[in-house]
Amino acid sequence: MENKHIKNESITGRDVDFAKWYTDVCRKAELMDYSSVKGFIIYRPYGYAIWEQIQNYLNRKFKQTGHQNVYMPLVIPESLFNKEKEHVEGFAPETLIATQGGKEKLEERLIIRPTSEVLFCEHYAKIVSSYRDLPKKYNQWCSVIRWEKTTRPFLRGAEFLWQEGHTVHASEYEARQETLQILEIYRLLGEELLAIPFLTGRKTDKEKFAGAMETYGIEALMHDGKSLQSGTSHYFGTGFAEAFNIKFQDRDNILKPVHQTSWGVSTRLIGSIIMVHGDDNGLVLPPHVAPIQIIIVPIQMSKPGVLESARLLKDELAKAGFRVELDDSDQTPGWKFAEYEMKGVPLRLELGPRDIENNVLVAASRNDRSKVTINRPDVVNTASQLLETIQTSMLEKARQHLHQHIIEVHNIDELLSAVETGYAKAMWCGERACEDLIKERSSATSRVMPFDQLSFQETCSICGKKAKKVIYFAKAY
Amino acid sequence: MENKHIKNESITGRDVDFAKWYTDVCRKAELMDYSSVKGFIIYRPYGYAIWEQIQNYLNRKFKQTGHQNVYMPLVIPESLFNKEKEHVEGFAPETLIATQGGKEKLEERLIIRPTSEVLFCEHYAKIVSSYRDLPKKYNQWCSVIRWEKTTRPFLRGAEFLWQEGHTVHASEYEARQETLQILEIYRLLGEELLAIPFLTGRKTDKEKFAGAMETYGIEALMHDGKSLQSGTSHYFGTGFAEAFNIKFQDRDNILKPVHQTSWGVSTRLIGSIIMVHGDDNGLVLPPHVAPIQIIIVPIQMSKPGVLESARLLKDELAKAGFRVELDDSDQTPGWKFAEYEMKGVPLRLELGPRDIENNVLVAASRNDRSKVTINRPDVVNTASQLLETIQTSMLEKARQHLHQHIIEVHNIDELLSAVETGYAKAMWCGERACEDLIKERSSATSRVMPFDQLSFQETCSICGKKAKKVIYFAKAY
Repeated sequence: MENKHIKNESITGRDVDFAKWYTDVCRKAELMDYSSVKGFIIYRPYGYAIWEQIQNYLNRKFKQTGHQNVYMPLVIPESLFNKEKEHVEGFAPETLIATQGGKEKLEERLIIRPTSEVLFCEHYAKIVSSYRDLPKKYNQWCSVIRWEKTTRPFLRGAEFLWQEGHTVHASEYEARQETLQILEIYRLLGEELLAIPFLTGRKTDKEKFAGAMETYGIEALMHDGKSLQSGTSHYFGTGFAEAFNIKFQDRDNILKPVHQTSWGVSTRLIGSIIMVHGDDNGLVLPPHVAPIQIIIVPIQMSKPGVLESARLLKDELAKAGFRVELDDSDQTPGWKFAEYEMKGVPLRLELGPRDIENNVLVAASRNDRSKVTINRPDVVNTASQLLETIQTSMLEKARQHLHQHIIEVHNIDELLSAVETGYAKAMWCGERACEDLIKERSSATSRVMPFDQLSFQETCSICGKKAKKVIYFAKAY
Repeated sequence: MENKHIKNESITGRDVDFAKWYTDVCRKAELMDYSSVKGFIIYRPYGYAIWEQIQNYLNRKFKQTGHQNVYMPLVIPESLFNKEKEHVEGFAPETLIATQGGKEKLEERLIIRPTSEVLFCEHYAKIVSSYRDLPKKYNQWCSVIRWEKTTRPFLRGAEFLWQEGHTVHASEYEARQETLQILEIYRLLGEELLAIPFLTGRKTDKEKFAGAMETYGIEALMHDGKSLQSGTSHYFGTGFAEAFNIKFQDRDNILKPVHQTSWGVSTRLIGSIIMVHGDDNGLVLPPHVAPIQIIIVPIQMSKPGVLESARLLKDELAKAGFRVELDDSDQTPGWKFAEYEMKGVPLRLELGPRDIENNVLVAASRNDRSKVTINRPDVVNTASQLLETIQTSMLEKARQHLHQHIIEVHNIDELLSAVETGYAKAMWCGERACEDLIKERSSATSRVMPFDQLSFQETCSICGKKAKKVIYFAKAY
């Protein structure tokens, strides 16, 4: 446990100053720390362990769907980076560039990867030549660099951790299926692991990724009513294939360009978890993603038998597969309660001399702060049920919050009002001018066009022309 | 499977040109590929999967011994990097430096991390202030950059993957214990996972790490008689703690500097595996580290029932926990045999119509190319036994090779002769001049001083003065 002696300070109220509350939680729950270079954060053990849970979940899903992990170079020669025009325009303003190697100036400047499309393209051009080589479905876990001016822990940084998948396929159909399959995996990640109900759908041309034909996204509603783009999945068509000459001889002997996708989620997901579930006492973690699911706090620890019982309890729970810890440090129980509330540990088990005598334990749930007395012999079953209940009710609560903050809007005033508290569900003519107008008047942007396109009026909620699409607008991080 | 149509070419003989054989195996077993920047390689799925096996093993061991994973920034401000003098002198000639961010020249140059000691030090200085905060035992998995002129896949590169552990402790004793505990974990990694018997011991002052008080290493003997340093563990004393002001209030209320360690292994281990076990047919992987432990090759695949039987076999083995694949592509069985021999898959199971009729399978071991017929109903048990036998005999063979190539030397001529084929086990006076002399005359260097210091003569094998240490010399990669 970190820094015990300086912890247990209170944090800014969530509804007093949400931004300050957020950074307080990031630091006091010991998820991260700042380094001496602006925008580069340190992922502390507790924050990194959340990321490892996400990695484990996704690696399992990616493997089940035939993906393979690889590792590409950290650097991209400037000339290679410049090969696909739209793509380079999207990224060039925010790259970090190396110019010196050892004592010498480099012959060619090297971009520290902001994303690795061009590296995958160059490799695929070398290893793909026949339909037999397809598909190639590669993923990599790494950090990327974006030279951002304004940074916030996990949300926007000069460096962040992510996975980036890059796949090439023989047909457009297959590539489009891949794009959507990944989006579904991301949606399930929210539902099954993070207890976050993502809004999913397609991005408008204005909001899509540099170089993509289509971008799909997962969006989460934060406690303050803003939306956080938490992952994207892109269909590239054959644009990169043409630029990088990734072609294959098909069964019909004709040379064709591959159809390509890319997709990624990042440590931004940690920001989502904090801002969807956290409260005035700190972080609240869904049990499935929590590095510590159960914390055992002994009461009157110096009394004979208490520590021994606590250790037996820990061993039993660890053996049953729970991620469990026992805090046998010399801090008071009250201090420990506050400590693990701040860290959002889903379930706390307390046991003291009287509990041991009565063969019971006190179980406290972090999410709703409820307490129940449970029978010691049933602890494995009961803890399992409690954790599942917590997971389910956290998802349910987030879902209710989401649905309460989606407002169907029929005109621009309703839209501008709705984005103050959550999503405006609008009808849209499809013109960029309408998106630009909203952005001018409220800083809100279009988030996604959902798959469920159930029209609720015939005219665009913004300009009044004929509507083509259901679309969500929100202020976004 | 990659590039089927261009595979199955023969490789250079191992004893014809070992260096060329090595790069042939790296590429034809599809472990890696070159990128367009010299020294930066692509870790292809099969190579990366070996690294993931190593990661899994070490993460388990690190966790069992109370270590926690973190992630530190990719960049180090030049002024911070320059804070510990010996350390910076060791690394400065081979750093990659970023000077440009977005459109602007950086105010301070940023070193792309060659190792992260100074970052951990800066962080520890912030979070450690009391004996209660100690020990801190952190590890990180990442890539590092060394601006090397001469590069070889996995052995020496501008970028490689590694883990770097950095720990701080309240006492010298505890820090020294940590250094040795990690060395033992590395030794076990060799013995249990890689089937490599590492020579372990302490490095001389000449060969130790920049800034360390003591460096311990694991060395492996390659097929060509050269030694490969495969991992190191350092005790730093309080040097970094003084330079970075990492101090803690001890139980006696006195402010003291922490005692520090660092340690790491890298993707160089993949080079060890290749050069210890590989043969003229390609890679040979020990079962415990092999991404594919069993490959099923159906014979006369078009005959009714063959593919179905092969699939049932695969499912049964996968369910039993083996890493198993079935190659049902339209290549010939002969092609497939060569393919998976090149990739070093430990066990091949063949089944054709007659085998199915007789309720048997043919099992071929990659390491000694032996074949046995096994009963289909016993396949799970038999495969398990065969894989364990392969693992054990690979370790045994490597151990014999090692012992046959350690020669006790009594004078400089014997030493110079011994290092042509393996290790010279020498007595040494402890003077650097003797190391320098050997280096001048043969390019060999001292590797380690083993823990078992059983003296075999009283005088230094090099200069004839009084001997102080048993030491191994070898030519090294």
